[in-house]
Amino acid sequence: MKKKIRVVQYGVGPIGASIVRLIRQKQALVIVGAIDKDPEKAGRDLGEVVGAEDAPWDVKVSADSAEVLSHPVDVVVHTTSSFLPDVASQLMECLDAGACVVSTCEELAYPFRKHPEMAAKLDEAARESGVTLLGTGVNPGFVMDKLVLGLSAVCQRVDHAKAIRIVDASKRRLPLQKKVGAGLTVEEFQRRVTEGTVKHVGLPESVSMVSDGLGLDVDTITETIDPVVAIEPLRTDFLEIEVGQVTGIRQVARGLANGVEKVYLELNMYVGAVDASDTIELSGEPNLTMVIPGGTHGDIATASIAVNAIPALLAAPAGLRTARDLPFCFFPPLAPP
Amino acid sequence: MKKKIRVVQYGVGPIGASIVRLIRQKQALVIVGAIDKDPEKAGRDLGEVVGAEDAPWDVKVSADSAEVLSHPVDVVVHTTSSFLPDVASQLMECLDAGACVVSTCEELAYPFRKHPEMAAKLDEAARESGVTLLGTGVNPGFVMDKLVLGLSAVCQRVDHAKAIRIVDASKRRLPLQKKVGAGLTVEEFQRRVTEGTVKHVGLPESVSMVSDGLGLDVDTITETIDPVVAIEPLRTDFLEIEVGQVTGIRQVARGLANGVEKVYLELNMYVGAVDASDTIELSGEPNLTMVIPGGTHGDIATASIAVNAIPALLAAPAGLRTARDLPFCFFPPLAPP
Repeated sequence: MKKKIRVVQYGVGPIGASIVRLIRQKQALVIVGAIDKDPEKAGRDLGEVVGAEDAPWDVKVSADSAEVLSHPVDVVVHTTSSFLPDVASQLMECLDAGACVVSTCEELAYPFRKHPEMAAKLDEAARESGVTLLGTGVNPGFVMDKLVLGLSAVCQRVDHAKAIRIVDASKRRLPLQKKVGAGLTVEEFQRRVTEGTVKHVGLPESVSMVSDGLGLDVDTITETIDPVVAIEPLRTDFLEIEVGQVTGIRQVARGLANGVEKVYLELNMYVGAVDASDTIELSGEPNLTMVIPGGTHGDIATASIAVNAIPALLAAPAGLRTARDLPFCFFPPLAPP
Repeated sequence: MKKKIRVVQYGVGPIGASIVRLIRQKQALVIVGAIDKDPEKAGRDLGEVVGAEDAPWDVKVSADSAEVLSHPVDVVVHTTSSFLPDVASQLMECLDAGACVVSTCEELAYPFRKHPEMAAKLDEAARESGVTLLGTGVNPGFVMDKLVLGLSAVCQRVDHAKAIRIVDASKRRLPLQKKVGAGLTVEEFQRRVTEGTVKHVGLPESVSMVSDGLGLDVDTITETIDPVVAIEPLRTDFLEIEVGQVTGIRQVARGLANGVEKVYLELNMYVGAVDASDTIELSGEPNLTMVIPGGTHGDIATASIAVNAIPALLAAPAGLRTARDLPFCFFPPLAPP
């Protein structure tokens, strides 16, 4: 039996907590450390912080990333921010310490168009350390890009790719309900869209991945964010929404080549969505439609993918990789290290 | 610009013909030879044999595999038989010539359970030549295995995997209609099932791939083949089917672990199926259902996957690989070699 894979969790928010509980189920993995700057978490036992029944785990959450990474680490699972400029130095620190990294940072899922220089630097750092860096999650990283590319394997020609995701935000946690503007007036929603605080991050990254994978030569990506408005009163565990108030977002990203639409991604996340689903439509030879009724659950799926990607991450060549490059699969709990 | 990838087509039946037409659309690929023992094809121009509008292609079909493989070849696309023992020497010859191979041989899609020694020999031969060998297609190779594994990436636990494929054989070529027994009496159908001539090859291979990928520990695989019987007269371009005659097959493979079903694959291929579709159901955390209404077209998809797999085949480490190991995607016509 080989040695277990030593994992550090970087960021112990809701997704990070879900991830560490999953990691504990995998015989091949062992959590050797956790990093979080939050003074309410740093210094405490990781199992207690995430509310695990079998806590304590004898693993402390630490605010001192350098100290945690000074010990031998095989993989860092990184879940701190959606924006690559905010996390580039954290990722660099992990790579320089010789650890592979899987991150849920949305902008890392396919960073080559928005952050080409940062992507090149991270790729170089990963290669120099002989490790692999991957940004992924459910969206971006799976339903609107990886799954589109996977299905395209049966196609002889692809002219256009469409993905529509409908998420019922009622069942999601409060930060997500707030992120989509649930309960705001339309005016306040528009103000927050303008300031950038009501927004799902990652659609342009998915457009880029799909365009590059399918050779659709997208030269322009547009993005719009519109409110979905309540036509009846709604209530979640956290919020009450009156008629005329916002229930969530309809966010659309389009990829155009010479003015012609090639990729259309539509994300609907709002309280009270009754037709939750993920739908992919490929136009070409043949046309192909795929539906996941109910849709993939965002939080569960993101935690799943981050952990399930670890075997492929470790098997991949050194450098910055994306979901496009790796075969994704469930990581069986009893799989050998 | 790099040199084009030199491809040989081994087997110029209906699927092989579809494949070479696709290869001609890819700027990165060039067909340098074709092998077929059929005296009606050998010696003729490949483009003429496959009925291409732009024939002749200045590529001859040859019955002499050794001669064709004595020239530099990067990839052989192999489509001659469903059974690994029938093709092992053909595959060996290609590997020994230093060519990567993608084959639609169903038993090669996941040969480790039924033909472990042959799989080991092929793996060794591929590694010795520093090339990669892949068996794939739409089924096995995609809808009932690769796609199941790909979807499982969003799961935190998988207890059971099910795939149901319904194909309307009316729209398929005559050999397929015959393969599923369309137009036979029930007695004749049963006789042909017993002698092995009415059967789809590859369900146990898919069960094995799914079991290994998901860690379901299947120890026993069962397979049943039943007739679907006409309740009204049916007619295809090739056949007339009376009430009470067979329209096609319902073939079920089950994977059991300690007597408990873990994998259920059901393939329905019959004339007059009105609800053609591919459905995957994963039971676990979360449960997940995926539907492709209309289903993936078997012949188009198999040719597509064989050609689309070439970039991943060339990028993979030497040895015997399966769909499980590789990221699948459409191969854009203008992609660089």
